Amino acid sequence: MGDTPSQSPEPVVLTVCTTCRQTGSDPEAMRPGRILADRLAGSALPEGVTVRGVECLSACSRSCTLHLSGGPARWSYIYGDLDPDAHLEDILAGAAAYAATEDGFVPWRERPVVFRKQSIARIPPVSMPSVALTPTPAPERRDTANDTPDTPATELTQD
Amino acid sequence: MGDTPSQSPEPVVLTVCTTCRQTGSDPEAMRPGRILADRLAGSALPEGVTVRGVECLSACSRSCTLHLSGGPARWSYIYGDLDPDAHLEDILAGAAAYAATEDGFVPWRERPVVFRKQSIARIPPVSMPSVALTPTPAPERRDTANDTPDTPATELTQD
Repeated sequence: MGDTPSQSPEPVVLTVCTTCRQTGSDPEAMRPGRILADRLAGSALPEGVTVRGVECLSACSRSCTLHLSGGPARWSYIYGDLDPDAHLEDILAGAAAYAATEDGFVPWRERPVVFRKQSIARIPPVSMPSVALTPTPAPERRDTANDTPDTPATELTQD
Repeated sequence: MGDTPSQSPEPVVLTVCTTCRQTGSDPEAMRPGRILADRLAGSALPEGVTVRGVECLSACSRSCTLHLSGGPARWSYIYGDLDPDAHLEDILAGAAAYAATEDGFVPWRERPVVFRKQSIARIPPVSMPSVALTPTPAPERRDTANDTPDTPATELTQD
């Protein structure tokens, strides 16, 4: 937020699933994610934030859902169990806080409750390095005779 | 996979949560995600695929979990309920099929069962356009007097 931005931040996108619906709800009714996406699109969005409606985030049991992202340098998040009546303002506030960061990481206490409590998953920035791993062969492999990768050691016959 | 690739594909990353554990499991035991990440790192990874271990994908109830991604032009996926003993080979096969695509979309029948059945969420490529939305004001707004966006119509007084 300084006068000499060291990098131009990537746009922030609220990707909303417009097709999922809660179990037992009227299949003919407008989907809550569509309502949420339409209302976000009709809101005064924070600077740098856009809304995208997509068909199926494949998190159907947690309807309605959205994905908050802002380029490879930022954390991204998936939120679920959203209610277009209850959560619109909090989503906008959370997106504004997120868009004001370079890495997408908003301190826990500064996130709206819906973002604290209803996270389905979060994904680190692409640049985040791996923890130190210890490469380990899988014990169930039966390639004791040799290491030729072409040998289908686990191939099963149909009977 | 042709002789004249139109674009250089981005690297594919299997990001594995190394910290989550299943409810009731021994908290001192090595976490299944760490075992999975170590075994993936010890496997013959498909071309263009790397493994990254991270601390917490915030999908703790679906341990162990991984995120499959390959740059902004590809779909990305989050999978859960993974078992390092049962699913290693399928994860490698699924990552290979994914890495062979430009957009990350592998036909359903060509995905390993674990990728078909244990998806937590999927995220479309950044370039995927929005479905047509109908910008709609939220009904709970009390801006009936006028439409001036500068008017804080929903401002509440504290009492």
